[in-house]
Amino acid sequence: MATLDSVFRSLKEAQVKLALQTRRQKDEALGGAAAMIDRRRQEILAANVLDVEKARSGGMKESLVDRLLLNDKRIDGIIEGLETVIRLEDPVGKLRSGWTLPNGLLVEQISVPLGVAAIIYESRPNVTVDAAGLAYKAGCSILLRGSSSALNSNRALTAAIREGLASGGGIPEAVALADSGSRDEVDEILGARGRIDVVLPRGGRDLIRRVVQNARIPVIETGEGNCHIFVDSGAALENAVDIIENAKVQKPGACNAVETLLVHRDIAESLLPLLARRLAGRVELRCDAASRSAIGDTVPAGLELKSADESDWETEYLDYILAVKTVASLDEAVDHINRYGTRHSEAILTNDYRNAQDFCAGVDAACVYVNASTRFTDGGEFGFGAELGISTQKFHARGPMGPEALTTIKYRISGTGQVRQ
Amino acid sequence: MATLDSVFRSLKEAQVKLALQTRRQKDEALGGAAAMIDRRRQEILAANVLDVEKARSGGMKESLVDRLLLNDKRIDGIIEGLETVIRLEDPVGKLRSGWTLPNGLLVEQISVPLGVAAIIYESRPNVTVDAAGLAYKAGCSILLRGSSSALNSNRALTAAIREGLASGGGIPEAVALADSGSRDEVDEILGARGRIDVVLPRGGRDLIRRVVQNARIPVIETGEGNCHIFVDSGAALENAVDIIENAKVQKPGACNAVETLLVHRDIAESLLPLLARRLAGRVELRCDAASRSAIGDTVPAGLELKSADESDWETEYLDYILAVKTVASLDEAVDHINRYGTRHSEAILTNDYRNAQDFCAGVDAACVYVNASTRFTDGGEFGFGAELGISTQKFHARGPMGPEALTTIKYRISGTGQVRQ
Repeated sequence: MATLDSVFRSLKEAQVKLALQTRRQKDEALGGAAAMIDRRRQEILAANVLDVEKARSGGMKESLVDRLLLNDKRIDGIIEGLETVIRLEDPVGKLRSGWTLPNGLLVEQISVPLGVAAIIYESRPNVTVDAAGLAYKAGCSILLRGSSSALNSNRALTAAIREGLASGGGIPEAVALADSGSRDEVDEILGARGRIDVVLPRGGRDLIRRVVQNARIPVIETGEGNCHIFVDSGAALENAVDIIENAKVQKPGACNAVETLLVHRDIAESLLPLLARRLAGRVELRCDAASRSAIGDTVPAGLELKSADESDWETEYLDYILAVKTVASLDEAVDHINRYGTRHSEAILTNDYRNAQDFCAGVDAACVYVNASTRFTDGGEFGFGAELGISTQKFHARGPMGPEALTTIKYRISGTGQVRQ
Repeated sequence: MATLDSVFRSLKEAQVKLALQTRRQKDEALGGAAAMIDRRRQEILAANVLDVEKARSGGMKESLVDRLLLNDKRIDGIIEGLETVIRLEDPVGKLRSGWTLPNGLLVEQISVPLGVAAIIYESRPNVTVDAAGLAYKAGCSILLRGSSSALNSNRALTAAIREGLASGGGIPEAVALADSGSRDEVDEILGARGRIDVVLPRGGRDLIRRVVQNARIPVIETGEGNCHIFVDSGAALENAVDIIENAKVQKPGACNAVETLLVHRDIAESLLPLLARRLAGRVELRCDAASRSAIGDTVPAGLELKSADESDWETEYLDYILAVKTVASLDEAVDHINRYGTRHSEAILTNDYRNAQDFCAGVDAACVYVNASTRFTDGGEFGFGAELGISTQKFHARGPMGPEALTTIKYRISGTGQVRQ
């Protein structure tokens, strides 16, 4: 059996060196990687063609093929992401807190690299570069375990990153691809206690479940997004319709797309007919009785309407479907979200100050929004240049994960000979 | 089978309320708990006598019985700890970071309670109060799963805490004891996905291993302490001997006690004979050849001396034993620590500025010390009033865990109608 033993060792050795690099050294190495991806563009695109052809001939759905596909524009986006990562401040070496004890010991809490990370992901080859860039910035080495469907693309990208890091005076061994394609490889990663400090699964429900069930090393979970928008009674109608449309239609397959709309009963009869007209022919609505009745008898042409049941409140459709429920109060909306939501991204549309505050305090989620689309939950949108994923776990990393997610703390205690009494 | 289902539900309901309490409300409730422990002192001590008698009649070692034992002084200490927790600033509601996106969205990163915690611990009944107090301060409810040997004590303490929280206007349901004593109970906690947000095992190696192997919920690991002191060539000799003695002898069973001494070869012949005289009759030394030779031919009366082998570098003795190794350089010391250490507490004794910096940067541990005893790695010593344990995991909680360890972050995003392009 091929094992990752030597890869783990090499990643660890690289990380020990990388942890001592200055921001300038890390940024120059990342600049080398960005330039090399540009220079190796043709090789990368040629490798991607192999993956795409194989996927199509294997009968992969076009929506999934699209995730796999690279082109010039996407490579430009990947490079721009890396350049943003370079501009981010160094997440390492921040003095997060500090105090002096009565005996004179100075206690300082400092951010440090988390160590050796591993990411297990599906399909999209841009994750290869995003994860490598963010990890390097955080002083972490990273083991990339992508989908076998993207193997040629990931090999070409990883080769370019490593060559580029070296050309920028960096440490190419800090980035490695696990490319045997065997499932044993995943198990070996998940069992690598003392070798890998954290594993990030990024993909569908089955992948996350498998990782959580089998990991013996710390996991940062990324999760599903059963996201809600609650429209409060005094919300601005046209803007509410714009936001709901955006959160549903702009990219329905994204985890931060809205899945259930909650409408205050006092505004349902004004809002829902407008919304129905806007979404007719594009989005199927699954309504509870009150919402169906608020749409009225004149159903817009092309509107698909169904009755919602309990299972609709629980479902992340990732599709052109929106569940709609009318609620009597803010409290009912918050309770519904805390019961059915996946603690991802939740929004209130309101002009009531107190309700905005109470919603943000009462809803348990990584991201709570007032008067904006849930679609902004994204490392790129947040300004991180890329993301390692969106954590729905309630540890240090919650929400879109930039380089800070791959740091931890160290206490440095400076004394003059103190002993404990 | 008895199940914890209703306990989980009640903890969750309590936590939702507790998360919205102000600092003043939480502190008043904790003040009620402190006062009630004082008032119920006789009941608590009587319950503890039952545990202690049962332990002794079952043949428990006196050192373990001592961990179980409560007396007036220890109860005073528990109450003082709670009072310190009350004085700590609120770890919840801190604006940790914030920025405005190009589209005008304000992104704020705010500390929030982690949710429902569980702690699985051994023996010492003070953990019952420490954990309950810190969790309450952090706005978290907590399930306490103590040792069956301390069951009467833990019941009496938990009853007093709950009664006291209620008397202080707080939420007594936020603290619950899992007291069936069955091992199934632990498995039920470890499998409680979606019900318990984090579990903290606090105890010996077997407990930690069992939790890590079986948990399907996030774990914060607390771990063993194979701690080192490195004495650099220019260290002050007498002070070095004081610190080593303190770190070894003051409480050898503690995880932050020193287990291996690393001595720079240039100072070995000055330091080790002094140290041998200081420790003779109290501490057994296990030396490599160079250290043995540095002690010289005149071995102090009563000194136990043995040869060290590889297994000594790996062992957390928790006893009056100290491994001693002579090293040629700072780098060799750092490499030894990173190879054999458990990333807990590591110290350098030096007067060389650069070496102090390099040691702190190069050693991967929760706490790195310059010129002080490793024994300070402790929530009480750090000023937290108590601790949930000492995390050796590299997430948000690392080192002594105060109330901050039971917080996570929430992003609050405030808009004026923004949609994603």
